[in-house]
Amino acid sequence: MTKTRDNRRWLYVRVAGAIEALIRSGVLRAGDRVPSVRRTSAQHGVSVTTVVQAYVALEDRGLIEARPKSGFFVRAQLRDQVPEPKASRPAIAATTVEFGSLQTKIFEAALLPEVVPFGAAYPGAENLPVVKLNRIMASVARREGAGAVGYDMPPGCEALRRQLAKRSLDWGTQLSPDDFITTCGGTEALALCLRAVTKPGDVVAVESPSYFGVLQQMEELGLKALEISMHPRDGMNLEALERALKRRRVAACLAVPNFNNPLGSLMPDEHKLRLIEILARYDIPLIEDDINGALAHSGPRPRVAQSFDRDGRVMLCGAFSKTIAPGYRIGWVAPGRYYAKVKALKLSSTLATASLPQMAIAEFVANGGYDHHLRRLRQNFAAQIRHTSEAISAAFPPDIKVTRPTGGFVLWVELPKKVSAFQLYERALAQKISIAPGPIFSASQAFENFIRINCGHPWSPRLERGIGTLGKLVESLR
Amino acid sequence: MTKTRDNRRWLYVRVAGAIEALIRSGVLRAGDRVPSVRRTSAQHGVSVTTVVQAYVALEDRGLIEARPKSGFFVRAQLRDQVPEPKASRPAIAATTVEFGSLQTKIFEAALLPEVVPFGAAYPGAENLPVVKLNRIMASVARREGAGAVGYDMPPGCEALRRQLAKRSLDWGTQLSPDDFITTCGGTEALALCLRAVTKPGDVVAVESPSYFGVLQQMEELGLKALEISMHPRDGMNLEALERALKRRRVAACLAVPNFNNPLGSLMPDEHKLRLIEILARYDIPLIEDDINGALAHSGPRPRVAQSFDRDGRVMLCGAFSKTIAPGYRIGWVAPGRYYAKVKALKLSSTLATASLPQMAIAEFVANGGYDHHLRRLRQNFAAQIRHTSEAISAAFPPDIKVTRPTGGFVLWVELPKKVSAFQLYERALAQKISIAPGPIFSASQAFENFIRINCGHPWSPRLERGIGTLGKLVESLR
Repeated sequence: MTKTRDNRRWLYVRVAGAIEALIRSGVLRAGDRVPSVRRTSAQHGVSVTTVVQAYVALEDRGLIEARPKSGFFVRAQLRDQVPEPKASRPAIAATTVEFGSLQTKIFEAALLPEVVPFGAAYPGAENLPVVKLNRIMASVARREGAGAVGYDMPPGCEALRRQLAKRSLDWGTQLSPDDFITTCGGTEALALCLRAVTKPGDVVAVESPSYFGVLQQMEELGLKALEISMHPRDGMNLEALERALKRRRVAACLAVPNFNNPLGSLMPDEHKLRLIEILARYDIPLIEDDINGALAHSGPRPRVAQSFDRDGRVMLCGAFSKTIAPGYRIGWVAPGRYYAKVKALKLSSTLATASLPQMAIAEFVANGGYDHHLRRLRQNFAAQIRHTSEAISAAFPPDIKVTRPTGGFVLWVELPKKVSAFQLYERALAQKISIAPGPIFSASQAFENFIRINCGHPWSPRLERGIGTLGKLVESLR
Repeated sequence: MTKTRDNRRWLYVRVAGAIEALIRSGVLRAGDRVPSVRRTSAQHGVSVTTVVQAYVALEDRGLIEARPKSGFFVRAQLRDQVPEPKASRPAIAATTVEFGSLQTKIFEAALLPEVVPFGAAYPGAENLPVVKLNRIMASVARREGAGAVGYDMPPGCEALRRQLAKRSLDWGTQLSPDDFITTCGGTEALALCLRAVTKPGDVVAVESPSYFGVLQQMEELGLKALEISMHPRDGMNLEALERALKRRRVAACLAVPNFNNPLGSLMPDEHKLRLIEILARYDIPLIEDDINGALAHSGPRPRVAQSFDRDGRVMLCGAFSKTIAPGYRIGWVAPGRYYAKVKALKLSSTLATASLPQMAIAEFVANGGYDHHLRRLRQNFAAQIRHTSEAISAAFPPDIKVTRPTGGFVLWVELPKKVSAFQLYERALAQKISIAPGPIFSASQAFENFIRINCGHPWSPRLERGIGTLGKLVESLR
């Protein structure tokens, strides 16, 4: 029985591989009809069922598409059409961060239910384990008695910290429960880390572009941003980082090595090692935001840069907000040698993290529900990224550029030079479509003709129409 | 039926009043036997049941006590024995706050389950509506679907803000749901307010003594504390405040007009009005911490100072941590004219407050459970304060002083001059008893011979033994 199933599994993978080879080699091109199911069945000596299984798998991966009553066809591959953006070239000087309430306004508009949700980077409810989590929360609340309403003082829920420690093996490192402090979401984790190693006026090296929430925190803390060039696939340009560090004193470096927001870039392991070596040489702490680390579209979970650290200079941050429950507000930090300072700041910032949400997540992780959910979520995000990319390449003018993230759920789109992202933002919002304009991802407000598109929601006609409208607006602004 | 019940109620109140008058006038003194139930029944022409009801009421209020097989006796009234502390006389200069991790260490030790819990100011689980809240949480989690796991962005849960607005009428003010921002506990509310109106190096006028958590926040923010003298009953000395404001530039004033922690002082309404007038004259914002406002031992809920404010300079903070659920981490702030700044800081500090705990509390408040619970809680805290005071006056040397709070659940004890609170703290902890030493309630680390005693737990032989041991330790240190 098991043998048969294994055989069949192996067969369909082999057939899919053969067809993929034909596409990759250019034998089959965009628009070509794929050999019929019957013909392939005969050619490979496998059952029709096996071939159908192979074709569905290829369809899932976006390589072919079914057309009603005509069979399967090779899809236009995104990489044949729209190029990626080039590496960013930020200003050399450190910039005082000053947005006022701009980012907040944009973020709030993006969350209105009547607005097409391309603006804020958050997963749609359909992608969250709503029913399972609510069931666990209900049972934990009933079971825990006084523990459910009492303080769970920092470092926070031990059951959750144990699960994090276990999972850290998957991150290529080995942390103990005592290395973690739980926080009110990833936002608090990052804020505590910034406060732990900087004082007002200090300079922090950040990615360019980087998550606007962190820039907002830096503004509130009176910090200056030194923006480092980013490659759209490999992440931070380490030569640029070293040049910057030679030039001026930097209090900390903040990076998202795994699936940067908004680029989706993934820093290769060798680069992570070099990053740690460089920062050790200059004795600079790294705030590593691993919020998207669990969201590789396929393949293994990438390592954290912290795994190369030998002297506790990395403050590793993460959260469950992008994977299961934004509203539970549960994040964590493993602050290395800055543990005592971060814990003191946690106490004076929010005293403790809410007890029940921690307990519920600990149970969801411990009973395997989290891993099960992650497998589906990663596939969903991959599909949503693919659909959105394709819709953009169909609806936008041809001289745009789009990232090709291998993880996470956002796209970064370079528009024609003349198109102002802010203008596009205003016009789109007037039509009830939210986007995130590029300049909010940069302290120097660069990226004037870039936008970020959230792909956290299941692909739908509403989203497709939204991309279509955006395409027309871009056209009208050029 | 109703009439009979009303009559009986009126009768027992009348009998209790007659006995109380005998005690207050000195006809019956401490240790005297109260007239027997039978005799009082005959004297007042009421049933035995009514007299028993009257005596139980007097016992509940601490005026008399039953002794097995001997009847009821007048209790030693605390006010006959132990005097109150005098008004505090803080240093005139502003002090940079520097505790290091001292307060944290003390706070953590105080929460260990094996330690007698006089150290941290928190209510025991027996005083929290554990079963009801857990049941509501379970039902809300099942009912709310995606809303339970999604973001509830600032200003936060509308249902909860509506309830707060309704309750604000009881506080002597009239706030709208839009005036509130919900926070991760009272701690975050205070931290956001401090950050909104100060920058590092600024001076903040604070009560002396004041809640150490706020001093810790000021330390993290690089603020200086200007300590203002406090009267143990009336709270902040407003002449002292005015003298201080004439002397130097102050960025903000932080006060707990209703049941200051650790004094339990209650600022009279005229003082609240004057406080607001003084701060208006000097154009200084007031951070009003109303965390204990709902905890009057008897009588009406005191007004908030904010109710006298005409120009939005008061940032009113509160929380549900001391009344129903420390571990839910739900607080609020009505930041007046500083609304936009506080909201921006909330976003960059923790992004949002956890959704489910807000929903559960909103429901508990809306369905009347909160008010019902508060009535019992206030009685419990009154009784616990009374028991602890009496135990202290019995076990400690006679030359101590103890506050007589009319709300909240902490006592502030002045020990003989020679006794070091820190030494007492160390020796008590060695015997697994936690206390909060006085100096952590002052930036200048005054109050060297004061301690704060938490009375948040139901009175028990374990607590009584703890007070007994403390009394011996005080004796040994003098």
